[in-house]
Amino acid sequence: MAGHDIERLVQSLSRLPGLGPRSARRAGLAMLEKPEKFMQPLIGNLIEAEKSVVKCGSCGNLDSVDPCQLCSDLERDQSKLCVVEDVASLWALERAHVFRGRYHVLGGVLSPLDGVGPEDLSIAALLTRVSVNKLDEVILALGATVEGQTTSHYLADQLSGAEVKLTRLAHGVPIGGELDYLDDGTLGAALTARRPLI
Amino acid sequence: MAGHDIERLVQSLSRLPGLGPRSARRAGLAMLEKPEKFMQPLIGNLIEAEKSVVKCGSCGNLDSVDPCQLCSDLERDQSKLCVVEDVASLWALERAHVFRGRYHVLGGVLSPLDGVGPEDLSIAALLTRVSVNKLDEVILALGATVEGQTTSHYLADQLSGAEVKLTRLAHGVPIGGELDYLDDGTLGAALTARRPLI
Repeated sequence: MAGHDIERLVQSLSRLPGLGPRSARRAGLAMLEKPEKFMQPLIGNLIEAEKSVVKCGSCGNLDSVDPCQLCSDLERDQSKLCVVEDVASLWALERAHVFRGRYHVLGGVLSPLDGVGPEDLSIAALLTRVSVNKLDEVILALGATVEGQTTSHYLADQLSGAEVKLTRLAHGVPIGGELDYLDDGTLGAALTARRPLI
Repeated sequence: MAGHDIERLVQSLSRLPGLGPRSARRAGLAMLEKPEKFMQPLIGNLIEAEKSVVKCGSCGNLDSVDPCQLCSDLERDQSKLCVVEDVASLWALERAHVFRGRYHVLGGVLSPLDGVGPEDLSIAALLTRVSVNKLDEVILALGATVEGQTTSHYLADQLSGAEVKLTRLAHGVPIGGELDYLDDGTLGAALTARRPLI
């Protein structure tokens, strides 16, 4: 349909998570049609990001500096550690502006079927952080999936010897969610964990 | 939430059509986490495409060669010209494998509200192509939008002097479409243009 260079571009775009073949074609076309508006800034920002962005040696976040801005921010509560699956989860929590402690990025969740064991995740580093630093609370903020819950239980087990409060995120009705559209598991969890109205 | 380089990257991704803020974040993160898998191939292909891809001087398609592969393919029927709004429409028709003639990319549709007049589109070039080449048929394959239809009527008017058959795409029920989900306009058009069953 078009030159090999175009096909290769659209292919490498469609390989990105979050883009299907259709949005990859749209994005690729827009860049080719308006290179100075879309393509040149993107090329510049990609090259810049590839050069400068590093993984934080402490928490696993991605930033231009190591340790990352969150780890070196002394105004954040160093006694609370929030364990997340990946950097996307960390960003999501930061967008919510509700947590002002430190993070620990596991780099995935346990998944025997996919061959992901404890040694593939940043679990040893987590145990070291918990034992070396004086922490009040470790929040296991993993997804409410089978793998996320299995990983939470595994971590709780590993951390059971540490003198630290272990918590997890609440399950329940999402804000703005209508009961009619909720699955039974969520509804059950929301009812079981019901709270006094005032 | 993260370094400026990351924010700039996500921003330039989210500016692309087809990507929202969420998919831009996902794509940006995947690239930063696996640069050799996602980012380096994309940078290479972007630079390559920016260098090599040109607009075809004859039809307006994008390709690594000018005239494009479609215009220089002598097996394609040179007597049929299909007028499309943009390169995305051209690619869509090529994917359908139903048209084996030549194309003409207008570069948009008439839209007085957005300040797009006839001189902003490749209409003069179209009239020249129709008058110079011996054509049997000009197919106006523009979208079934108000602007698309206005543009079709304008082109039909401009081409009324030429000795050529003017056609447009059929309107009707999309293949796989359920009547219940169709808008009244499409249903009305489909009923008006009904065809004998055998």
